[in-house]
Amino acid sequence: MESVTVKSPASVSNLCCGFDILGMALNEPYDTMQLIKKDEPGIVIQHTDAYLLPVAADKNIAGVALQAMLNELKYKNGFKLIINKQIKPGSGIGSSAASAAGVVVAANELLGRPFSKNQLVAFAMEGEMIASGARHADNLAPCIYGGLVLIRDTLSLDIVQLTTPPLFITIVHPQIEIKTSYAREILPKEIPLKSAVIQWANVAGLVTGFLKNDYELISRSLKDVIIEPVRSKLIPGFEAVKSNSRQAGVLGGGISGSGPSLFMLSENQKTATLVEVGMKAVYDKLGIAYKTYVTSINQNGVTVMKS
Amino acid sequence: MESVTVKSPASVSNLCCGFDILGMALNEPYDTMQLIKKDEPGIVIQHTDAYLLPVAADKNIAGVALQAMLNELKYKNGFKLIINKQIKPGSGIGSSAASAAGVVVAANELLGRPFSKNQLVAFAMEGEMIASGARHADNLAPCIYGGLVLIRDTLSLDIVQLTTPPLFITIVHPQIEIKTSYAREILPKEIPLKSAVIQWANVAGLVTGFLKNDYELISRSLKDVIIEPVRSKLIPGFEAVKSNSRQAGVLGGGISGSGPSLFMLSENQKTATLVEVGMKAVYDKLGIAYKTYVTSINQNGVTVMKS
Repeated sequence: MESVTVKSPASVSNLCCGFDILGMALNEPYDTMQLIKKDEPGIVIQHTDAYLLPVAADKNIAGVALQAMLNELKYKNGFKLIINKQIKPGSGIGSSAASAAGVVVAANELLGRPFSKNQLVAFAMEGEMIASGARHADNLAPCIYGGLVLIRDTLSLDIVQLTTPPLFITIVHPQIEIKTSYAREILPKEIPLKSAVIQWANVAGLVTGFLKNDYELISRSLKDVIIEPVRSKLIPGFEAVKSNSRQAGVLGGGISGSGPSLFMLSENQKTATLVEVGMKAVYDKLGIAYKTYVTSINQNGVTVMKS
Repeated sequence: MESVTVKSPASVSNLCCGFDILGMALNEPYDTMQLIKKDEPGIVIQHTDAYLLPVAADKNIAGVALQAMLNELKYKNGFKLIINKQIKPGSGIGSSAASAAGVVVAANELLGRPFSKNQLVAFAMEGEMIASGARHADNLAPCIYGGLVLIRDTLSLDIVQLTTPPLFITIVHPQIEIKTSYAREILPKEIPLKSAVIQWANVAGLVTGFLKNDYELISRSLKDVIIEPVRSKLIPGFEAVKSNSRQAGVLGGGISGSGPSLFMLSENQKTATLVEVGMKAVYDKLGIAYKTYVTSINQNGVTVMKS
């Protein structure tokens, strides 16, 4: 096999109370990436999208992730990587994770699958590092495992796949810029123990709701008393989107990753579409450009399209 | 019906990472309480145990809980309550909760079951208030619902019953005194966000492990990076008990409630009994009197023995 093409999905991390520990892969949007074996060493990157991301392998998220894998293998030859990003960088729906996860899954496929999913997450984290400056797997793990994923421990990569009842996800990406690093900076270093207890009660409720297919419990637990009050101030229209979504009958939702995208979970597609209407109304009124998606959970993660 | 006798179980709250939100009822030890209707008003309390608890109804936990229920019913006649406590007050295995939960279940039975379990928890909380000064349901809810219980929200009494695989619990109660109020006082008011994230990752892992019958995940998640480091200093022998228990093959464990009792969870009775041997060795060596129990989860909570 000389070439492989993969679809690498967007993802929503945090899920309100699950800051830094929960993430889920989406069916829409997704990047496509083609990885081609070369006989000579070196990683050559080409973008067919309009995002002007760096093409130098050591400055490109996918390049760094791929190099981490090749180093481990002591692999001498090179690759050409053609990336078509559909997930806008900085949108808060796992654009960098899609780049890093996509390339490592593609390379693993081309090289005869020498690595486990956990190893692939570890290589991809090397790539994500250059985007966020921190080791996080809450977008990467769902990209590689698919579905909804709990990262119980990042250091040992203790990744637990969770089941859910059918869920529909509405995303709005208001076209404003929030740097992940700034969104981290403004978080409190210390939080009241009382708030932490409320948060972990909700996390426990949310996970239980997912595993027991209990929509009511999911809805009651989709709360964030720690991160959302701080970060939501960076996102114009946040309260209006929440309020419109509630009126549409949403289960709940909040900031996707570190924003600015917002996500809302619904029990059925009809509600998810009504939520989208409410989101559009908010940003039309504010005069802020936006993009919306109505999608569902991607149970497979990065998928090989052809090889 | 003129009289009813109930068994009211001990319980373990917190379960390491689940501070203030998780609790489970035990098959051993338990109090027995007999509640007898009287024709004249007033609550008369009699103890057949040796703990010298107050018998004035407004100073007795069971008395206050019962009175809260009678107020709601505008019930005019009185009761005689005969309490035989086997759960030592101040042991950290829900002695006060057993008193409060037992009497409200008994009275509900005698009066034709006018109240739901949630309402019974609310009445019992009135009683618990005089013991701890705080509204907590993490011992009461498992006493009344049975099994392992998540209190997602104390204010609205959002109580969620969780399933578990078979678990055996070893308890050691070193006979030292720790006031619940002091054990609360020494807790930090603020905690690092980083520690909180570790804690809620473990809570999510623990709940998932219980619901998916995954002993390995339960074991990896039974950690407490926030409360245990502070409170364990009040309990001589804590580290030695942990170390001996690990050698015996325990899943994990820690402080029961606010201590001084320690609990350990095992996959089978043989391990739970080995854990007990290790506990005894620690307190024999320290010369501290103690009591141990090897027991399992009480799935029924307070039970009516005869009426």
